[in-house]
Amino acid sequence: MDMKLKPDAQSWVENSKDTDFTIHNFPFGIASVRSGEKFACSAIGDFAINLYALHNAGYLSDLQIPNGVFNCNVLNSFIGCGKKTTNAVRNELIRLFLSTNDALKNNKSDIKEILIPLNTVQLHLPIEIRDYTDFYSSIDHATNVGKMFRDPANALLPNWKHLPVGYHGRASTICVSGHSFKRPKGQSKPADSDFPVFGASKLLDFELETAFVIGKDTEMGESVSTKAAKDYIFGMMLFNDWSARDIQTWEYVPLGPFLAKNFASTLSPWIVTLEALEPFRVSGYVQSPPVLPYLQYSGDFNIDIQLEVLLETQHLVPTSLCISNYKYMYWTMEQQLAHHTVNGCKIRVGDLMASGTISGPEPHQYGSMLELTWRGSKPMKMKDGSERKFVNDGDTISFRGKCEKDGFRLGFGSCKATVLPAN
Amino acid sequence: MDMKLKPDAQSWVENSKDTDFTIHNFPFGIASVRSGEKFACSAIGDFAINLYALHNAGYLSDLQIPNGVFNCNVLNSFIGCGKKTTNAVRNELIRLFLSTNDALKNNKSDIKEILIPLNTVQLHLPIEIRDYTDFYSSIDHATNVGKMFRDPANALLPNWKHLPVGYHGRASTICVSGHSFKRPKGQSKPADSDFPVFGASKLLDFELETAFVIGKDTEMGESVSTKAAKDYIFGMMLFNDWSARDIQTWEYVPLGPFLAKNFASTLSPWIVTLEALEPFRVSGYVQSPPVLPYLQYSGDFNIDIQLEVLLETQHLVPTSLCISNYKYMYWTMEQQLAHHTVNGCKIRVGDLMASGTISGPEPHQYGSMLELTWRGSKPMKMKDGSERKFVNDGDTISFRGKCEKDGFRLGFGSCKATVLPAN
Repeated sequence: MDMKLKPDAQSWVENSKDTDFTIHNFPFGIASVRSGEKFACSAIGDFAINLYALHNAGYLSDLQIPNGVFNCNVLNSFIGCGKKTTNAVRNELIRLFLSTNDALKNNKSDIKEILIPLNTVQLHLPIEIRDYTDFYSSIDHATNVGKMFRDPANALLPNWKHLPVGYHGRASTICVSGHSFKRPKGQSKPADSDFPVFGASKLLDFELETAFVIGKDTEMGESVSTKAAKDYIFGMMLFNDWSARDIQTWEYVPLGPFLAKNFASTLSPWIVTLEALEPFRVSGYVQSPPVLPYLQYSGDFNIDIQLEVLLETQHLVPTSLCISNYKYMYWTMEQQLAHHTVNGCKIRVGDLMASGTISGPEPHQYGSMLELTWRGSKPMKMKDGSERKFVNDGDTISFRGKCEKDGFRLGFGSCKATVLPAN
Repeated sequence: MDMKLKPDAQSWVENSKDTDFTIHNFPFGIASVRSGEKFACSAIGDFAINLYALHNAGYLSDLQIPNGVFNCNVLNSFIGCGKKTTNAVRNELIRLFLSTNDALKNNKSDIKEILIPLNTVQLHLPIEIRDYTDFYSSIDHATNVGKMFRDPANALLPNWKHLPVGYHGRASTICVSGHSFKRPKGQSKPADSDFPVFGASKLLDFELETAFVIGKDTEMGESVSTKAAKDYIFGMMLFNDWSARDIQTWEYVPLGPFLAKNFASTLSPWIVTLEALEPFRVSGYVQSPPVLPYLQYSGDFNIDIQLEVLLETQHLVPTSLCISNYKYMYWTMEQQLAHHTVNGCKIRVGDLMASGTISGPEPHQYGSMLELTWRGSKPMKMKDGSERKFVNDGDTISFRGKCEKDGFRLGFGSCKATVLPAN
């Protein structure tokens, strides 16, 4: 299915080499211009590609695209067409925008309709999220949390290496990059009190995650093998699983996180297809003890995605808080999906499955303030002289993700949100 | 808003006194006849009321119902019209079907279009479920579980009496009454082994629950008070939160139940409106220690709903397993909703919030096999001589719910599903 590109392949669109949106990417999103109607789009260089306009101009006419999938508020219908169609669209985009192809390049009036400067479009949540699941699949993160809150000598719980621990989360408060939200209020219990208190969270945190979007339904009772899982994964995004640590500590026994997480999550606007990510596959974490047969796989099932978290305020230029990489994940997406469906749980187009916090083995690779400041005991010094134990009101946290190899690259765009004071 | 009916009010429809669907009820659902198109409906006696046909025949013409809300696959649009509209429809149904009203009663050809024998219609999942939340709000259930799995002397965890513990669940596998599903497979860890094994669950269980349907959106960042909560609760249904106890015990630390629950849940087909339930309000559980101000309320916030669980097989007529009552709940729906939104979590029309297992204080009132057989240690004897520790392949579990007072009643219909062998 996938079109093989040479590493040095270039587009005729200017500034499309040192960008997230190279000829190797072509992610999918939803955009609008000046409060107009939403449309499906991709991106190249500094431009959004209006897929509705591209289709109307006849450039995708060989692909038998059903009506309405580009003239839409969300990508669910497009994704639901299946990989045969979605890959064909992406491959046609690659062909059209290669420096060697003149079809669109020389049609100035079509270009004007189709290529829209990214700084003039508004990007929206690209999918209607059905069920949202969050995993807990970074061994460094789980180990750090276990050391801090449980037993340093037995940081991982007995089940952790046998199954990708996961739980269901809330879809209604997942927002697209660029939003702001109020610091949540809730119950927490001070260590020196027998009773809880109510108020704004004092320990607001980010969690550096990625998420994958389900591209194909199953029937209830059906399971997806690790081998077949790729067919069900449409693509990946960056995801900030905002967490209120003080609320979480008090509420989470015995049924897991609830209000500590469901006040807000942030998703990047672009879905980078699994096919675009294939060149960056690397071998998975060596799993020991061996996992049960339904979780086994062979081949390179992890992905080398460089991740960075930045903090920005009115007085502080974007400052790096941590550098991590998706390749540190213990459990792969394919294992997560095989586990999620092994009991017959039905998945649907538009389901979102997040990785859990992605920490690396080194302290500067930890994917949350909880770990970076070791529960606030080691504050981080910012360039403006301020200190951070957790996230302050007015802070903007943004994630970046990119893949780079053999001189070519692609990226995820930004996943960014600003914390407002509680009201 | 609500039309006050005398307890002895009767309908002109035959057999509508000793039934779930009396003149006092008028729940809402979605039906179809012989694989035809779905339509919104209510019920009286042994009949479904085709609301689309009723509207087309002009009986609801004063109510300014938007197009398409009765000619639909789910009730979300109708519910989203708001209580002013939905209550007006229900009040008009009460008026039309009162024994004193001849408008429809004497129109045989309209009746033929509008009243359809319930035994000839297929009932469907009445809402597109957005986010689904399950609470854990019965003190007898939480105490029983705590005694069995944790510390009999400290059965309730420290947070339990301070907040209605809840967690997010999976919407994709919630099915309407009458379905069957395969026994789930998954990991469990035998007590005498260091490693988990994979296979069909050996400890499949029901959980007797109710659920309420959200009827009004909030904005992200907004909270709903216990006093305002009624405006956001459209109605109630019966809910079976099927659970695989062996999978649950192994997987649930530290992030809560996941595969042990998300393989299947069963929902009754009718949404009984909160307005229909108002006459059955009773005082809530006396909460001690006092709860935080945002969880306090005054007035009768609980509801007297008699609940029963029945087991049926090919060889066994429906046999009662337990008798419980919604009035035993420690936390009310209004408190659950106030807690759920106190951090600004957005709710949407079609969200479903389940009660958690509803156990009463007496052993025959326990709402799960786990509790009824005390983790399998006290098997239950069936009339056909068989024993049950948990639920067997081929078992059909059905829930019934009814409210009865001053000689009048209403009910929820059936919430029923059959367990098939794992494949």
